[in-house]
This record gives sequence, structure tokens and C-alpha cells, in this order.
Amino acid sequence: MITTEDTLKTKINTLDLSKKLTQTENRHSLLENHLRNAGVSVSEHFIHQGILKAAAFQPSSVQLPLKDIHVAPLFPNLVQKNDTHLLEATGESISVSGKNIAVLFSGGPASGGHNVILGLQKALGSHNVLYGVKSGPKGLITGDLFLITPENLATVTNLGGFDFLGSDRTKIKTKEQYEQVRQTVRKFKLDGIVIIGGDDSNTNAAFLAEFLVSETCAVVGVPKTIDGDLQAGAWVPISFGFDTATKIYAEMVGNILQDTPSSRKYWHFVKLMGRSASHVALEVALQTKPTLTLISEEMSAKKQTLEEIILSIARVVAQRALKGMAYGVVLVPEGMIEFIPEFQLLIKELNALMAQFSAEMDLLSGQERVTFIQNKLPKTFSALFGSLPEPIKTQLLLDRDSHGNLQVSQIPTEQLLIDMVKAKIKDMKTNPDVYFGPGKIEVSPKEYEKFIQFKFSSNSHFFGYEGRCGAPTLFDASYTFNLGLTAGSLLLGGHTGYMAALTDLDKGGKPIGLPLTSLMNTEFRGQETMVVIQKALVEIDSPAFMYFAARRSFWALNDAFSNPGPIQHFGPSANQVPFIVALNHGFSHFGFHIGQEVALSL
Amino acid sequence: MITTEDTLKTKINTLDLSKKLTQTENRHSLLENHLRNAGVSVSEHFIHQGILKAAAFQPSSVQLPLKDIHVAPLFPNLVQKNDTHLLEATGESISVSGKNIAVLFSGGPASGGHNVILGLQKALGSHNVLYGVKSGPKGLITGDLFLITPENLATVTNLGGFDFLGSDRTKIKTKEQYEQVRQTVRKFKLDGIVIIGGDDSNTNAAFLAEFLVSETCAVVGVPKTIDGDLQAGAWVPISFGFDTATKIYAEMVGNILQDTPSSRKYWHFVKLMGRSASHVALEVALQTKPTLTLISEEMSAKKQTLEEIILSIARVVAQRALKGMAYGVVLVPEGMIEFIPEFQLLIKELNALMAQFSAEMDLLSGQERVTFIQNKLPKTFSALFGSLPEPIKTQLLLDRDSHGNLQVSQIPTEQLLIDMVKAKIKDMKTNPDVYFGPGKIEVSPKEYEKFIQFKFSSNSHFFGYEGRCGAPTLFDASYTFNLGLTAGSLLLGGHTGYMAALTDLDKGGKPIGLPLTSLMNTEFRGQETMVVIQKALVEIDSPAFMYFAARRSFWALNDAFSNPGPIQHFGPSANQVPFIVALNHGFSHFGFHIGQEVALSL
Repeated sequence: MITTEDTLKTKINTLDLSKKLTQTENRHSLLENHLRNAGVSVSEHFIHQGILKAAAFQPSSVQLPLKDIHVAPLFPNLVQKNDTHLLEATGESISVSGKNIAVLFSGGPASGGHNVILGLQKALGSHNVLYGVKSGPKGLITGDLFLITPENLATVTNLGGFDFLGSDRTKIKTKEQYEQVRQTVRKFKLDGIVIIGGDDSNTNAAFLAEFLVSETCAVVGVPKTIDGDLQAGAWVPISFGFDTATKIYAEMVGNILQDTPSSRKYWHFVKLMGRSASHVALEVALQTKPTLTLISEEMSAKKQTLEEIILSIARVVAQRALKGMAYGVVLVPEGMIEFIPEFQLLIKELNALMAQFSAEMDLLSGQERVTFIQNKLPKTFSALFGSLPEPIKTQLLLDRDSHGNLQVSQIPTEQLLIDMVKAKIKDMKTNPDVYFGPGKIEVSPKEYEKFIQFKFSSNSHFFGYEGRCGAPTLFDASYTFNLGLTAGSLLLGGHTGYMAALTDLDKGGKPIGLPLTSLMNTEFRGQETMVVIQKALVEIDSPAFMYFAARRSFWALNDAFSNPGPIQHFGPSANQVPFIVALNHGFSHFGFHIGQEVALSL
Repeated sequence: MITTEDTLKTKINTLDLSKKLTQTENRHSLLENHLRNAGVSVSEHFIHQGILKAAAFQPSSVQLPLKDIHVAPLFPNLVQKNDTHLLEATGESISVSGKNIAVLFSGGPASGGHNVILGLQKALGSHNVLYGVKSGPKGLITGDLFLITPENLATVTNLGGFDFLGSDRTKIKTKEQYEQVRQTVRKFKLDGIVIIGGDDSNTNAAFLAEFLVSETCAVVGVPKTIDGDLQAGAWVPISFGFDTATKIYAEMVGNILQDTPSSRKYWHFVKLMGRSASHVALEVALQTKPTLTLISEEMSAKKQTLEEIILSIARVVAQRALKGMAYGVVLVPEGMIEFIPEFQLLIKELNALMAQFSAEMDLLSGQERVTFIQNKLPKTFSALFGSLPEPIKTQLLLDRDSHGNLQVSQIPTEQLLIDMVKAKIKDMKTNPDVYFGPGKIEVSPKEYEKFIQFKFSSNSHFFGYEGRCGAPTLFDASYTFNLGLTAGSLLLGGHTGYMAALTDLDKGGKPIGLPLTSLMNTEFRGQETMVVIQKALVEIDSPAFMYFAARRSFWALNDAFSNPGPIQHFGPSANQVPFIVALNHGFSHFGFHIGQEVALSL
């Protein structure tokens, strides 16, 4: 029986709950409220008598050679000043006051960015001034800076996103832009700038550092990118944001894997963000052990054709169908298409044609562009280009980004693979003699019957944006806080042209300053030769790849997957590092150890 | 300096780590290993002197009326036997031995299914036999049963998926199928069957219960579905799996929301699984407070046209653009298109035509089907159908499922909305007088300039499969375990034709048996009139919807979102229930309270 009293009580409860729910607006969910007051691990180099302090840095005995002869002429000031020696902490703290430091985000967001600023602020303390640059490099050009206070920064402690400052992808390249930056530096009397960004943004940081030597304004970069392609051996084991993003993708992929033997009827093709490199796909593969994972760098090394790749997928689809398993999960790295040699040549040709005819092409629609280019292409390329499904053709002719890169995330590679595998399966049914029999796919008549009845049903997914702004994992939260402390320490010490980095992630964490010039090499992009930071690709002789290569054939034909589950901020799985980092850097365990825990509440 | 010794140590570490990584295969990630040994909460009705036991049930004083006159004639045995009284626990335990019980999953997976079986097994104890039916209802027809042991079941404790048994969507409907089920019942001497499924599967359970009265085999249903459309007021506050799925979607939507003010340039249209009802979209909206959330039931109640819906979205897009916010997130319920009255009529007409011409249409390709139907449609419908983008037309003509439902997940509603909003924005720029000015969208010349420069960039997402098989939340893990205990208790007591349910989720949990017949009503599907369990839709006068309606205009123009983060199995957010459940049922807090914690390790 429901009484009037009950009804009244329910109404009061609902009113009360509604109030509580409204209080969760503006990033005040239970977890966000908890994280804002949670601690991070801090390397002992930044703790002096129990207090967080900036560390003094000095050149170590390690000198890093420049990668090629084009670098030094572009950086006369930096090369002379730094002599490409690695900087290491002296063990002393440094006490400096009166400096003005600005910080900005550049490029796509990655989890932990806010904690970099927090660490930077702790390093600067209350006797230096910290400015936030709004909307990325653009804000540095226009002079859109604001004063960061501990109070406003505390609202984003341990939270994801770049929204505290905003970000953009402006590349500072014209002389005028450089002059505008100089004006900003003078206007705000800046002694230092921290650029939190990926490989292209850190390239920009290097040129800016060189340019601003005359203003005695130091520039330091911080390695950010979910793509994981900003690595430098032991010096930069990984960029921040990679751990959080891959764990989010691994949760989703694990759930989808878990779905397949339950519903038993879908092949899921999952494209993963990560631009050119396949680090994300490899890490997610190690976390989840899916049916198949394509690694772009391997395709390139083995000079595979698209036809070979399709056949290798279709073989596994068929072999599983013979076992009654009409399902599976295929991981596809975002940048794959650029790594297939025949495509590489095609894209190079397209880049050149598009640069050459950019004025004409600007006036054309998607379909007109396809026809226009088709007619301009040399015969070899024209055949391959013509054989592609229409949507792929259109996507290959989209505008390049400001760094001359093809926007690979726009290419529906997962759909291309699905269409081509479907056609191949059909061919296997129509021409069984070509594919089945001794020395080919071995099969009994009964099994073959299963294959004939098998229906290739597919789903496609693209996981990208959902991985860039999650609350950072314990690892990313701590790693970035220490990177911020390092960046602040370097700037207070007047060191310029360095990347703030942290090594020994399993042994207490060791902050270093890595000369940006030592990371640069010469590349051909679009129609230009450029000196840029080298993108780190998956090395197919690395322990992580070799482990994957040793296990994958087992994963392909057995449901050996694991489902790592959602990121935990508590409990036994909370402090795991990326498996590729642990494997490639010889950790003795999968957890991180960066110093001691420090509370971050105001 | 890296020494030979270091290299050797690294190699040993890598080898050691590789071994550890291989041990995580087959669902042995750190979290899965932890969860397998984690506890659940159990209602006191199942704990007798500290030991888990089946509970005795008896008719309560509550009698539930049949919904219409077509029900009773179809269930003469059940209606006579049960008299539609609710069953409640007597407070005593029940001790029965020698019974053979079978359990099966039906339909799409939902998190917690494995824990239902665990609860069922605990209720049966060691003196009764538990069979697992493989591959859903199909396995019941073919007699594909196996013996479940505590040891094999322990491998899936607290884990997601339906893979322990498999599942399918076979509807038992022909006389021959019923006879085959009878043979299975006789062959395995079954005294009871548990059907874990959604509304259609529980409808099937009711008919099977009626049919098997003559075999003295009892049938009990368990309310499963991530869609949340199997609810029955206080008796079934929610189906299991809804909590886990919506929290997974909320994590992703929260991350995407967090991304928008960071990158400041995308409108994300996110379609959410959930079939007809918008419970999933509403719950995710309450969790994350996105820019816009479409609720199908409201469109239907307000008789909105597609044009009106598009205009309402475009207005918000424009108003935000005027404020310099070129971004936002729109949640789209999967089944939306069926709820727009003009579409409803169109779909009804299409269903009838497709049933009428099914033989002819089976022979046609997608494009041919479109032309064929276009010619058969009455003029009113032909215009609306013809105005739709091509992909939508094709999808509307896909085969219906075995229950006669349109497969709404296949319709790219999110893309339809994007295309139409884009066109509307273009129109707003071309014909500003129609949209801007006093009494319309008020705007200053400077703001209008911002709108003209605004570029509508969009991304679409569909979150579905990734939410069905996550490890269950603490709530779903406990809820399902108690549902299993209830189902087992009902069967041991010989009660048939009931749904196992649990009420008072905030006050200790109270198990009940709900007569399946009381949930049924008469519906028109395809060309048939059917007696089925009524789908629960979002009620626009419910507290949850009214709260949403009161806050949404604030959410639309301000970035008031929160990011609830990933499901936590530890810590302060771990025991939250769905907000719609707490609001609609007058909870005094957002946590659940179902009895006391019990360890589940073997």
C-alpha cells in the first residue's frame, strides 16, 4: 500500500536528490570531486625537507649527437649554448624570484595537460608569475595571456582536457608571426615559455627557443601526444596522454571482444586514433589480445600490398568460420594506408599534384577533384587510384593540415578493409580450389560446409576523441606533474631549447632536460624539405613488437582475449604503465614508481 | 652508460614480464582476476544463520490486474494457478533436492548475466542439478544442454558477457518448436527453466510457462536489457545491464564533452543504443549534462515534425556560435526515427508493404527495393520517403527481426541529423531575416559576424556494442546475483510464470515473483496482433524526465557538463545506481543498498 505519507516522502526525496544532481554540474561528479583532491607521486629530486621545490639542473656527461648536418646551421644559438649535453638535476633545489613564465597547449588534447601546469606552478612557487596563454600558439601571437592563480588552477587538478587554456594547431612560421611573439614576450616581460605539445609543436618550440635567445626568454617543450610517436629511447620513454588514451580504447576493445563470443555473429573492425604510428594499436593489442591487429610499420618493412593484407585477414576469417567462430575483432591503426608501399607512392604523387594544382582544386567539389586528379595521375598510379572505392578516393584528396600532413583520421580505412575482405570471402566461396586444399587452407568436407553457410557480418568503429580527455590515469597524473616541475625548474635555471623529460619511471623518476636539437632530423613533407623532430614509429625489432608477433597467431584462432576493464583510480590495477613501455624499457613489473605520494589539494 | 650487465638484466626482465603478460590471456587481466574474487551484496531474505539459502515464497495480498481482455484466454493455466498475485518471501528458507533446472540467455548480452547463474546455483545448492542451455532458445529446441559445475562457473564470476552459455534471438513460436522443447524437458527431466532476457524473451517465457504446466516444468523469467525498457513501476525498477551500459556510455560521452571546449571546433552527434525507448539517452544526459539530448517519447507526445526538431537543434548551434562556441554534443536515441509521428505512419505503411511483398522484395537489391517501394507508397508517404537521403531510405527497407521490429540500430539517424542541421545552418546564413531579429534569435551585428564565420564541423558516433559486455558495476553484479537467487527460489518452490524481481534497492532489497501475465498487453506488430509484454517508455511526467526538462536549457547554452569518468569498482563512486532509478523511485541518495556483502570466491 502506498500512503499519502509515502508519496510526500518520495517527493521530498526527489527534490533533495535533484539538488544533489544539480551540484554535480560543471565537472562535479563524485569522481571528479574526489580526483581534485587526490595525490600524485613526485620524484625525490623535487622534494627538499618534505617541501616541493624547483630543482637545479646542470649539464651531464651525456652528449647527444645531432642527427644530420642540416640541424646545426638552423640553431646557431642553441647549439653553441647547449652543446647538446643532457641536463640532469644536481640534487640541490633552486630558489629564484621575479620571473614571468607563460604556458600554452598546442595541438590535440591529451590527458594530464592540466597537471603539467600544476607542477609548473609548484616549481615557480609564489615569488614568480605564471601566465596562461589562451587558445594555443595563436594566443602567443595575439598576446592573449591571463594570470594563473592557485585557486583557478585547482579547479582542474587531476582532470582531463585542455580547456583551462584551450589549444589550437597554429604553426608559428612567418617572420611576422615571430615578430608578434617577440612583442608578446616584451609586453609581458616573459623570461620563459612552456610549450606542451607533440612532435610538430616541439619542433616549433625549438625554433622559438632559437629565436628568443636574443630576448633572454627561455623556451622549454613538454612531450604530449596520445599517439605515442614522441619518444626518444630511454630519455623519453613515452609522451603523456598515451597511457590514458590506450587504456580507454582497451576498455572499449575489451568490451567488444567480450561481446563477440556472446553474440557470435559479428566481425568488428576498430580503427584507433594515433596518426602515422601504430603505438596505440600495439598497446591496445597487448592489453586485450584481439583476433587480429594490423601494424603499419610491419606492412612497410615487409613491403606488403593491399591485396596481401586483405588475403591475410580473409584467411583468418575463413579459418575461424571453419571452427564455427563467425566473429572476431580487427584493430586498424589510423595511419595504416600511408604505410602500404604502393599507397605511399600514390600519396606522395597526390601530395605533389595537390600542391601544384592547389588553386584549381580549391574551386572544385569532391567528385570533380577525383576526376581532375585521375586525369593528371601517371598511368601506374591511375590504376591503383581508380580501383579504390569512391569514398576513399574523395578522402585521399582532402586538404592537408598546416604541417602538410594528410589527415589520416578522415580516411575510412576500416570500411575499405571491410568491403575488400567481404569481396575476398565471396571469392573464396566462388573459387574454393584457389584457397582450400593441401598446402592451402586444410579443410574437411564438413568444415567446408560451415564456411559456405558462414555470413560475414561486420561492424566498424573509430575510437579517437573519447580517448583524449579522460581524467588522467594515476601514471599520467603523476608523470605530467613531474614534467611540469621539470619544465619550471629548467626555466628558473635559464635553460632554453630543452624538452622537459622524466626517465627511470620504474625506479623513482629522474628529471632531465633533453636538447630539442638532438631530436631533429631532415624530412620531406609536401614539397618542402624541413628540419623537424623525428616521429617515433613502432620498431619491429623492439621487445614489445616481438612479444606481439610471437603471440598473435595463437590469438587469431583462439578466443584468448582479456578485458582489462575501465581505468581504475583505486585498487590493484590502478598503477599500471603502458605495456610497451614496461617491455621496451626492461621494467621488472608493470607498475610505475615515481617517488613518493604528495597531496595536491589547495 | 649502458653496460653488458644492464643489457642482460633488461633481457631477463623482458622475459619475465612477457611471461606475466601471457598469464593475462583468457580473461586474466589484473582487474578480471580481482573481480572474480570480489563480493556482492545479498538481501537478508537469502541469508539464514550466515549461510546463503533459497527463500520460500507465498502469494502476497497484492494482486495485479491484467492489462486487457486478450491476455487471460491465452494463459488459462497460469491465470488459474497464479491468480495474478505477487509472490513475496515468507522469511523462511526452503530446502528442496533432486530438481533439475536449466538456464538460458536470450537476446543481446547485458552485464551481470553470469552473476544471475551464480545466484541461481547458490539457490539450488549441491542437492539439485543445474544445466546450462547453449546458444539461447535455439539450444532449448535442439536440446543442447550441459552440466554447470561450481568450478566452471567460477571462471566468470562478476565478469561481463553471455559467453558462458552463448545466446541467440530465436523466438519459440511454431507448434513444432514447442514440441521440441517438450522433448528437451522430458529428456533432461527438467523441473524448471530460467529465461534471462528482455521483453520479447519474457513474453516467450510466459507462453512457455503456460505450455509446460502439463509437464510440471516451471518457467521463470529474469529482466535483462541494457535498453532499460523492461520496467514495471516499483516491482521492476530497472532491468539488469542498464546501469553498466549507461555508465560506459556516460564515460565516453563525458570524455567527448570534455574534449569540446579544449579543441573548440566540433559538434559531436552521438547515437546511443537502446532500441525504441530513450531511457539510455536520458540516463546518460543526467550523468553528463550534454548540450542537447533528444528524447523520442517527447517528440511523439508533442507530435513534433522532423523539420521542427532540426530547427530546434540548429537554433542552439547558432546561439552558441554567436557566443563563440563552435562546438557541442548532441545525444540521439537509437529508436528516435520511429517516434516522429510522420515517420511512425511511414514505417507502419512500409512494414505492411514489406510483409505484403516480402517474396518480391527478397529478390531485389537495396536500390531496387527503394524504387519498388517508392512506387507502391501512397502519395502522402511517397513525398516524405522521397525527401530522405539515400542511405536512410535503404536502411528503412532492411529485413525486420524475428519479432517484426525494424532494426533501428542500422539506421544512421545521427548522420541524417547532421546532414539536415548543416543544410539548416546554411539556410540561416542565406536567409538571415527569417531566423534573426526581434522575437527571433536576437543578435548584435558583431555577434552575427561570428555566426557568418562559424563553420559547422561534425563528428558522428554510435555507442552500442561497447556497453553490453563490460564487467558489471557493483550494482549490476549484486542486483543480478539476487535475481538469480530469487529465480532459483521460485523454481524450487514450484512457482511458474513469474518474473524474478527485486524491489527496495535502496532499503536492503526485497525479492518478489511478479506474474508475467500482469505485464502483458495487446500490440499490433507487422501485420499481426500480438499479446506481448509492454515495453516501458520514458514517461514525460516522471521525476527523471521533469528534472532533465528543467535543466536542459541551461545545459544547452553553457558548458555545464560533468564527466563521471570510468566505472570504478572501488572508491566513492562505486555504488551509484542509475540516476533515473533514484529519481523516479524516491531514493534518499544515489547509492544502492542490497543487504550485506558476501564473498563469491569458490
